[in-house]
Amino acid sequence: MSEAFPSIKKIAYGGPKSKDPLEYKWYNADEEVGGKTMRDHLRFSVVYWHTFRGTGSDPFGVGTMLRPWDDGSDSVENAQKRARAAFEFFEKLGAPYYAFHDRDVAPEGASLAETNRNLDAVVKVLGEEQQRTGIKLLWGTANLFSNRRYMHGAATSPNLDSFTFAAAQVKKALEVTHELGGEGYTFWGGREGYQTLWNTDMKRELDHLGRFLHMAVDYKKQIGFQGPFYIEPKPKEPTKHQYDSDAAACLNFLRTYDLMEHFKLNLETNHATLAGHEMMHEMQVANGAGALGSIDANTGDYLLGWDTDQFPTNVYLTTQCMLEVLAMGGFTTGGVNFDAKVRRESFEPIDLFYAHIGGMDAFARGLKIAHAIRQDGRLADFVKQRYASWDGELGRDVEAGKVSLADLEARALKMGDVATIASGRQEFLENLINEFF
Amino acid sequence: MSEAFPSIKKIAYGGPKSKDPLEYKWYNADEEVGGKTMRDHLRFSVVYWHTFRGTGSDPFGVGTMLRPWDDGSDSVENAQKRARAAFEFFEKLGAPYYAFHDRDVAPEGASLAETNRNLDAVVKVLGEEQQRTGIKLLWGTANLFSNRRYMHGAATSPNLDSFTFAAAQVKKALEVTHELGGEGYTFWGGREGYQTLWNTDMKRELDHLGRFLHMAVDYKKQIGFQGPFYIEPKPKEPTKHQYDSDAAACLNFLRTYDLMEHFKLNLETNHATLAGHEMMHEMQVANGAGALGSIDANTGDYLLGWDTDQFPTNVYLTTQCMLEVLAMGGFTTGGVNFDAKVRRESFEPIDLFYAHIGGMDAFARGLKIAHAIRQDGRLADFVKQRYASWDGELGRDVEAGKVSLADLEARALKMGDVATIASGRQEFLENLINEFF
Amino acid sequence: MSEAFPSIKKIAYGGPKSKDPLEYKWYNADEEVGGKTMRDHLRFSVVYWHTFRGTGSDPFGVGTMLRPWDDGSDSVENAQKRARAAFEFFEKLGAPYYAFHDRDVAPEGASLAETNRNLDAVVKVLGEEQQRTGIKLLWGTANLFSNRRYMHGAATSPNLDSFTFAAAQVKKALEVTHELGGEGYTFWGGREGYQTLWNTDMKRELDHLGRFLHMAVDYKKQIGFQGPFYIEPKPKEPTKHQYDSDAAACLNFLRTYDLMEHFKLNLETNHATLAGHEMMHEMQVANGAGALGSIDANTGDYLLGWDTDQFPTNVYLTTQCMLEVLAMGGFTTGGVNFDAKVRRESFEPIDLFYAHIGGMDAFARGLKIAHAIRQDGRLADFVKQRYASWDGELGRDVEAGKVSLADLEARALKMGDVATIASGRQEFLENLINEFF
Amino acid sequence: MSEAFPSIKKIAYGGPKSKDPLEYKWYNADEEVGGKTMRDHLRFSVVYWHTFRGTGSDPFGVGTMLRPWDDGSDSVENAQKRARAAFEFFEKLGAPYYAFHDRDVAPEGASLAETNRNLDAVVKVLGEEQQRTGIKLLWGTANLFSNRRYMHGAATSPNLDSFTFAAAQVKKALEVTHELGGEGYTFWGGREGYQTLWNTDMKRELDHLGRFLHMAVDYKKQIGFQGPFYIEPKPKEPTKHQYDSDAAACLNFLRTYDLMEHFKLNLETNHATLAGHEMMHEMQVANGAGALGSIDANTGDYLLGWDTDQFPTNVYLTTQCMLEVLAMGGFTTGGVNFDAKVRRESFEPIDLFYAHIGGMDAFARGLKIAHAIRQDGRLADFVKQRYASWDGELGRDVEAGKVSLADLEARALKMGDVATIASGRQEFLENLINEFF
Repeated sequence: MSEAFPSIKKIAYGGPKSKDPLEYKWYNADEEVGGKTMRDHLRFSVVYWHTFRGTGSDPFGVGTMLRPWDDGSDSVENAQKRARAAFEFFEKLGAPYYAFHDRDVAPEGASLAETNRNLDAVVKVLGEEQQRTGIKLLWGTANLFSNRRYMHGAATSPNLDSFTFAAAQVKKALEVTHELGGEGYTFWGGREGYQTLWNTDMKRELDHLGRFLHMAVDYKKQIGFQGPFYIEPKPKEPTKHQYDSDAAACLNFLRTYDLMEHFKLNLETNHATLAGHEMMHEMQVANGAGALGSIDANTGDYLLGWDTDQFPTNVYLTTQCMLEVLAMGGFTTGGVNFDAKVRRESFEPIDLFYAHIGGMDAFARGLKIAHAIRQDGRLADFVKQRYASWDGELGRDVEAGKVSLADLEARALKMGDVATIASGRQEFLENLINEFF
Repeated sequence: MSEAFPSIKKIAYGGPKSKDPLEYKWYNADEEVGGKTMRDHLRFSVVYWHTFRGTGSDPFGVGTMLRPWDDGSDSVENAQKRARAAFEFFEKLGAPYYAFHDRDVAPEGASLAETNRNLDAVVKVLGEEQQRTGIKLLWGTANLFSNRRYMHGAATSPNLDSFTFAAAQVKKALEVTHELGGEGYTFWGGREGYQTLWNTDMKRELDHLGRFLHMAVDYKKQIGFQGPFYIEPKPKEPTKHQYDSDAAACLNFLRTYDLMEHFKLNLETNHATLAGHEMMHEMQVANGAGALGSIDANTGDYLLGWDTDQFPTNVYLTTQCMLEVLAMGGFTTGGVNFDAKVRRESFEPIDLFYAHIGGMDAFARGLKIAHAIRQDGRLADFVKQRYASWDGELGRDVEAGKVSLADLEARALKMGDVATIASGRQEFLENLINEFF
Repeated sequence: MSEAFPSIKKIAYGGPKSKDPLEYKWYNADEEVGGKTMRDHLRFSVVYWHTFRGTGSDPFGVGTMLRPWDDGSDSVENAQKRARAAFEFFEKLGAPYYAFHDRDVAPEGASLAETNRNLDAVVKVLGEEQQRTGIKLLWGTANLFSNRRYMHGAATSPNLDSFTFAAAQVKKALEVTHELGGEGYTFWGGREGYQTLWNTDMKRELDHLGRFLHMAVDYKKQIGFQGPFYIEPKPKEPTKHQYDSDAAACLNFLRTYDLMEHFKLNLETNHATLAGHEMMHEMQVANGAGALGSIDANTGDYLLGWDTDQFPTNVYLTTQCMLEVLAMGGFTTGGVNFDAKVRRESFEPIDLFYAHIGGMDAFARGLKIAHAIRQDGRLADFVKQRYASWDGELGRDVEAGKVSLADLEARALKMGDVATIASGRQEFLENLINEFF
Repeated sequence: MSEAFPSIKKIAYGGPKSKDPLEYKWYNADEEVGGKTMRDHLRFSVVYWHTFRGTGSDPFGVGTMLRPWDDGSDSVENAQKRARAAFEFFEKLGAPYYAFHDRDVAPEGASLAETNRNLDAVVKVLGEEQQRTGIKLLWGTANLFSNRRYMHGAATSPNLDSFTFAAAQVKKALEVTHELGGEGYTFWGGREGYQTLWNTDMKRELDHLGRFLHMAVDYKKQIGFQGPFYIEPKPKEPTKHQYDSDAAACLNFLRTYDLMEHFKLNLETNHATLAGHEMMHEMQVANGAGALGSIDANTGDYLLGWDTDQFPTNVYLTTQCMLEVLAMGGFTTGGVNFDAKVRRESFEPIDLFYAHIGGMDAFARGLKIAHAIRQDGRLADFVKQRYASWDGELGRDVEAGKVSLADLEARALKMGDVATIASGRQEFLENLINEFF
C-alpha cells in the first residue's frame, strides 16, 4: 500500500530556533521535565473523528478536505485503508495515543449485526496497527448522536427503541475498547438534553440516563474492563441544552444517581468556555472532587457561540491546563486528547501536521512553564500564605467542626472590626506568571 | 408622621380595560384561580434593598432617586422613618410580604454590639408595622458582600477574622428573622467565589463554606427557627465567578457537604440567564431534586452581561415560572419576591408603583395562563404520550433496573432499526402555547 | 402529478377560538388593518432554501427530514418536481411571495454553462407556477457560500478566479430574478469576511467588494431591473467575522464605496441579536438612514450563539417589527420573509405548515397590536412630549446650526443647574405596551 | 509636602531576569526598536480617573482603596494635593503622558462659574507639574455621564438644558486641554444612547449629537487647538445601547454628519470585545478608514459581560495591538493610554505600580514581538502572496473599475471551474506567530 503522507517524514525535535514548520520546537518526547519524560506527562492523543472523518462541511457549505487516501465510499475496505493512513499519521507525528467513536472507524450496515461485523473488520486492522506501532487507544466511545434514530436523544430518548439501540451500541463499543486495550471509555451525551422544554420530561429522562450508565457499569465489570469511565460535559450544541452541561452539573448528576465511584470527568476547553467557565475552573472543580480524568485539548473562540474546536496555541491556556494536571500528580489513564479540527479552509493533508505540531508544541511549552512555576514556588507560597490565618488553632477548630456561631459571635464582639485585610495582588500575580513566558 | 406617598391611594383592581396606570389590570388578590386566591398563589414580596435603599447610582454615575421621606443620613431615626415609609408602600401596593438584608434596614455602628443595637431598634419598628398591617416577612438574610471586610469573601474568605464576623452577622440575622416570624432565610454568596484563580484555594474555600452552613443549621435548630434555608445561585457579579453559580452547582455543593435536607433553592431569572439557562430550566432542575423553594422575580436583558434586575413584564416568562410553581403544587414557604429595581432614570417615587404594578400584573397573567394550559390538558397529554413507549413492560423493567445491556442488545439485533420516531413538534407546541395569550 | 401534501387543504382563517392547528387564528388575509389588508401589510414570503432544501443535518448529525416528493437526487427533473411541490405549499399556505437562491432551485452542472441551463430549466417551471398561482418572487439571490470555490469568500476572495465565478453567478441570478419579475435582489455575504486576520488583507477585500457591487449596479441598469438591491447584515457564522456585520457596518460600507443610493437593508432578527442588537434597534438604524427595505422573519435563541433560524412566535418581537414597518409607511418592495427552518426533530411535512402558520399568526398579531398602539397614541405622545424642550426657539436654532458653544455657555452660566429632569418612565411604558397584548 | 509613595523609587529597567516586582522586565524607555525608542513608540499614558479617583466600589460593595494622600473631601485643596500625588506617580513610573476628565481633577461647585473656577485652580497645579516633570497631557475630555443632569444623555438628551450644560462643559474642557498643551481631545458618549427604545427618538438624538460635535469643531478652530478629536466607541454600559457602539458605527455616524475629517477613533480592547470584535479587528477597521488615532490599553474578561477594565498582561493581545500601530506608521498624537483599574481587592498604593508595570511590560513585549514579526517578513509575505492573483492585469483592471459582470462571465464560461485554491493555513500561521513568543 502506498503512503498516505508521502512527503512527510517523522516529525523530529528541531528546537526553538528551527524555522522548519514540520519540526517540533518545544515538544521533545524524551526530554525529562521534573523526572518524567514529556511523552509520559502529556500522553498526546489524536482523535479519529475530526482528523480522519472531518470533511470541512459547515452549516453553510459543503466539505472541502482533500484526503487522497480516502475513496469517499462507505465501504469496509475504504475504512480499513483509512485506518492504516491514520496510523501512518499517528506514527509520523509521534503521538502515543488515539481515540475514536465506533462509527468513525467503520460504516453502519443494514442491521445491527452487520454494523457490528463491519466494526470488527476494522477493529482487526486497528489492532494490527497498534501492534505494529506501539500506539495505544486512550479511550473508546460510541457515537450516539449522528444517526437519525438518536434525534431525540439516546439514553434520554422518549423512544424506548432508541434507548435499546444505544444500549446495544455501548455494549459493543465497550467490548471493542476492551479488546484493543483501551485505557478508558468516554460518554459524551450530545443529544442527551432538549431542544425545547415544552415537549420534555427532564426528570424522567435523567432517571433513564442514570439507569443506562448503571447498566454500562455492570457490563464493564462483567467483561473485566478495568479502565475508568469518563463523562464529558458540554452545555449546548447540538441541542439547546445538554444535561451534562458542566463539571458541576455532571458531578451533581453522578452523586444523585450514585455513580461517583465509577466515573471521572473528561474536560474540554471549548466546552468549558461555552458553559461560561475557564478551563482552569472546570479542572479545579473536578480536581476538588477527585474526579479529573482526562482532557480534550482544543480551544474555542470567545467571540463565537459554537464549538469551533480549534487547535490550542495559546500558551497561557496550556500552562493553566498543565498546572492542574501537575496539581493532581499527572495523568494516570487520561491524556491530552486533541479533540480539535483544522479549519475548513486548511484543507490539505499537510495542514493536519501543522495543526497537531502547533498543539503539541503549545502543550509542551505549557508543561515546561507550569513545571517552572511550581519549581519557583512563589505562586504556591503566596496562596498558602494568604490562608495563613486558618492554620492556627481557631482555624483548625472551625475546619474540624468544633466551633459554633455563638463562639464566633463572642469573638467578633471583642474584635471591634477585622484588623487587617491583605491585598489580593491580582496584578502582581499576573505579572509573576508572565515572567515564565 | 406625614405620608411618604401622599398622592397614592391603595392600588385597586381596575381590570383589563382600565387605562389608569395606578390600577391593577390582571392582579385581583381575592380572585380564585383553581381553588386558591391569587394572593395565596403568588405570595408577592417587595424587597427592601432595591426599593428602599437603591440610589440609582451605577459604575458611571451618581445616584438619581428622589426619596423625600429619607433624609439621606445614616441615623437610626432615619432608618426607622424609612421603615414606616416602606410599610406604607407595601400596604398601598397590597403586597403581603417583604424581604430584607440586615444592613438594608439599619446602619452599621462602630462595633458589632452597636450595629446589633441599631438593628434591634429598627426591627422593633418592623415588628410594629407587621403587626399593624398584617404584612409578613418572606425571608431574612445577611448582607455579607458590601462591607470592605468581605472583599475576599465572607464564609470563603482567606481571612479567618472576616469569616468570624460573617458568622456573628448570620447568627444575629437568624435571630431577627425568627423574631419577626420570617418564613424562611436566604443565603446569597455574592463574594463567595473568586476574582482570579491565581490567588485562590477553591477546595479549601468550599470546605469553609460547608462548615459555615452547618453552623447555621445547628443554630437554627437551637433557636427553633422552623423556616427553610434557601441558597440563591448566581454565576458571576460581583466576582468573576461565584461558587453557587447555578442550580446544579448548588445542588452538587449541598450533596457534597451533606446539606441537602436543610436547603432549598431561591431562583432568580436574571441569575439563571447570566448562567446560560432559561429560568424554566433552573426551576425544573430544582423541582427534579425536590429543592425548589422560592423565586426572585425579575428579568435581565439578554443582550447585556450584568444583573440588570429589571421588573418582569414579559408574560411568556411569567407563564413559564407559574407553570413550574403549579407543577410543584404551589409555594409553601416561598413566594414571588421582586428582586428588581426601577431604572436609574425612573427616579420618582411613583415609578416604584408603576414598576411593581407591572410586575404583579405580569405574574397574575402568567398564573392565569399557566392554569389555563393545565386545565386544557393538551400540552401535558402531548408530553405524556411522547414517553408512552416507556409505559409498557420493558420500559418499566428498564426503569426498575431489571434489564442489562445484553438484554437490550438481543432486542436490538432482532429489531432491524428503530421503527418509528415521532416528530418533536416544537413549532406546533409553541403555537399551542400562544393560543393562551 | 400527485400532490405533495395530500392531507392538507388550503389553510383557512379559523379565528382566535379555533383549536385546529391547521387554521389561522389571527392571520386573515383580507381583513383590513388601518385601511390596508393584512395581505398587503405583511407580504409574507416563504424561503425555498430552508423549507425545500433543508435536510435537518447539523454539525453533529445527518439529515432527518421526510420529504416524500423529493427523490433525493440532484437531477433537474427532481428539481422541477420539487418546484411544483413548493408552489403547492405556498398556495395551500396562502403566502403571496417566495424567495430563493440560484442553487436552491437547480443543481450545479459540470460547467457554468450547464449550471445555467439547469437553472433555466427550473426557472421555466417557477415561471409557470407563478403564472398559475399568482404567487410572486419577493427577491432572488445567488448562493456564493456553499460551493468549495468560495471557501475564502466570493467577492472578497483572495483568489481572482473565485471572484470571477461569483460575478458570473450574480449576473445570471440577476437575469433570472428579472425574468421572474422579482421585486428585489439580495446580497448576503456569508463568506465575505475572515476566519483569521492573520491571513487577511481586510482593506483590499473591502475594496473588491465595493467594486463587485458597483458592477452589479451597472448590470442591473443595463438589463432594466427596477427592484432595489438589498444587503443583509450578519456578524458571524459561517466565518469568524463577516464584513456586513450589522446595519451600521453595512451603512458605513455603502457610504464608503458610494453605494447608498443603490442599496437598502434586509434585516433579520437572528442576525441582529447575534450582533448584540435588538431587531428594533437595527430597524431604527436603517429607518433613520432611509434604508430599511425588507425583513427576514425569524428568531434566534438568546442563550445560543449560532443562527438557529427559528420560526418567530414571540408576539412582543413581532409587534416591535411591525411598529417599525408602520413607522416607515409600510413595505414597498419588501416583505416579511420567513428565513426560518423547522427544528431538526420536526421532520414531517406537516411541521412545515405548523411552523409557517405560527409565524404568520404571530406577525398578524404583531401588526394588529402595533396598529392599536399607534391608534391609541399614548406612546407616541409620551415620546413627543419628552423632547418638547427642543421644540422652542432655542431648540430649533440649535438644530438649525445657528448656536455656538459660547452661546450655550452663556446660558448655562445663568441657569445655575438643569432645573427639571423628567423620569424616563420605562416601567410605565412597558406596562402600557403590555395593555395591548 | 510629604511624598505620596514614600517607599517607591523611580521604576528602573531590571531586565528579563529581574525578580524585583518593582522593576521593568521588558520596558526600557531608551531602548531602540526599529530606529525609535520604546518611549516614542508606546507613548504610555496614565489615566487620572481610575488611578486617582477610583474607589473600588462596585454595584455590590463600597470602596476599598487606601489612598493616604487623599483626605476624602471634595475640596479644591485636596484636589490640588491629589494632583501632586498623581504627578509623583507618573514620574516614578516613568510615564510620559496622562489623561483626565474635567471632573476627575476638580470638584463641581454650586454653579457652573464656581465649577470652572475650581477647575482652573487645579489646572494651575497640573500645569506646574507638567512644567516640573516634562510629563504631557495625551488628551483631555469632559465627563458628561456621572452627573444626575446627564441621566438621559448629554448631547443626546431629550432635555435642552442638559444639552446646554454639556456644551458649556465641553467648551471649558477644550480650553483647559488647549491651555495644558494636550495633544488631543476625546469624546466618549457614555450616556449617549438609550435604556429603552420605547421612550427614545433615535434619529433626533443622533441629529443633536451631530450638531453638538460640529459646534465643538467650530470652537476648536476658534481657539486654535490643533490636536485631533477622538471618538471612543463602546457598545453598552452604562446604557443598554450607546450610539457609538463600535468602530463601524462611529465611522457611519461621522460620515452621515460630515465629520470624518475632524475625528479619529480612540479604541479600547474591552469595548471592542463587548461589541463582539477582536481589538485587532477594530484597529484594522479604523486603519482602513485612515481613522486610527489612539488606543486605550486594557483588557476585559471574555466570560464577563461588563467593562472590567483590567490591566493588559496578555502578550498575544499587546502584540496584535502593536502590529496595527506599526502598520499605520506609529502613533502621531495618540498613545497607549491605560484606561484600566486595579481590582477592587488590590487596594494598596503599591498595587498601582504593579499594575502599570505589568501593563507597560506587556506592551513593550508586544512591541518587540510585533517588530520582530515585521522584520522576519514571513507573515507579510504569506498575506501578499495569498492575493497574488489580483496583481496581474485582470486583477488590476477589476480594481480599477474597468471590468463588467459580462466580461467576467465570459471568462468563467471558459474556465470550467476555479482551478486551484490555496489552503488558508490558519494553523501554520498561528504556529508562526507563536515562534516569536
